[in-house]
Amino acid sequence: MTTITNRTFDEISIGDSCERHHTVKEQDLLLFAAVSGDRNPLHLDAEYAATTQFKGQIAHGMFTGALVSAALAMELPGPGTIYLGQNLSFRKPVMLGDQLIVRLEVTSKHDSKPVVTLACTVTNQDGKKVATGEATVMAPTEKMTVEAPELPAISIA
Amino acid sequence: MTTITNRTFDEISIGDSCERHHTVKEQDLLLFAAVSGDRNPLHLDAEYAATTQFKGQIAHGMFTGALVSAALAMELPGPGTIYLGQNLSFRKPVMLGDQLIVRLEVTSKHDSKPVVTLACTVTNQDGKKVATGEATVMAPTEKMTVEAPELPAISIA
Repeated sequence: MTTITNRTFDEISIGDSCERHHTVKEQDLLLFAAVSGDRNPLHLDAEYAATTQFKGQIAHGMFTGALVSAALAMELPGPGTIYLGQNLSFRKPVMLGDQLIVRLEVTSKHDSKPVVTLACTVTNQDGKKVATGEATVMAPTEKMTVEAPELPAISIA
Repeated sequence: MTTITNRTFDEISIGDSCERHHTVKEQDLLLFAAVSGDRNPLHLDAEYAATTQFKGQIAHGMFTGALVSAALAMELPGPGTIYLGQNLSFRKPVMLGDQLIVRLEVTSKHDSKPVVTLACTVTNQDGKKVATGEATVMAPTEKMTVEAPELPAISIA
């Protein structure tokens, strides 16, 4: 069982950051299509995608948003965080196989409320920014460690 | 095989809208946890979630973002859309079992580029707005109908 520990508002300083790595797999595209309902063939059909301007399968734009949200929830600030808002610019296509780095950096702390803003940057293996934006969260005020449930096996026929 | 047809920039008028309905199921929470990597027990563990301020399992915030992105990709403008940016405010928690309505409405068309902005509103069964925001997309300029691949069966052990 994995445990995850948060960083409370008082423990967070401007400039604090975290980085998470993720390689985009075929399963990501299928699961994101299933959970969102976006079954555009650009994401799912290699043959069709090869005929488009992208020359291959691309990830759903909001898949990078999902990775950003997971970094906030699992790491900075982590458990107990309340997600207030997110903006994202999708700057370059994310291709199947891309090796992404999701980076969060605390950019402000509110004076009177436990509200924190974080710059969010998703970069590919060529160092190009594929998505950038800003998250606003209510950071936890109580220290906590929670168990992250193991997920059941998901199989794709 | 389902086909999806887009609305081109020239066909789109300010005020055009679409609505899609979705009931939040346990499978949504599991698949979103798997695809994002956010395994916070608030989304996955009914017993734990009951002890929190939310009194039950809530959906990942960015799950509503995924639903918004699917409405853009599948319906308005649909195939050929390039997602440029999204902002979202998460206004209320989305509970397991909530019946959501995702609504998009075109709010502006650019003068010289096929860029469109859409107001995005996600409402629950009580008529409360759970998420609001704005999407910016490059609308397609060519009419197209594409086949939306059927997804393989996904089973959760």
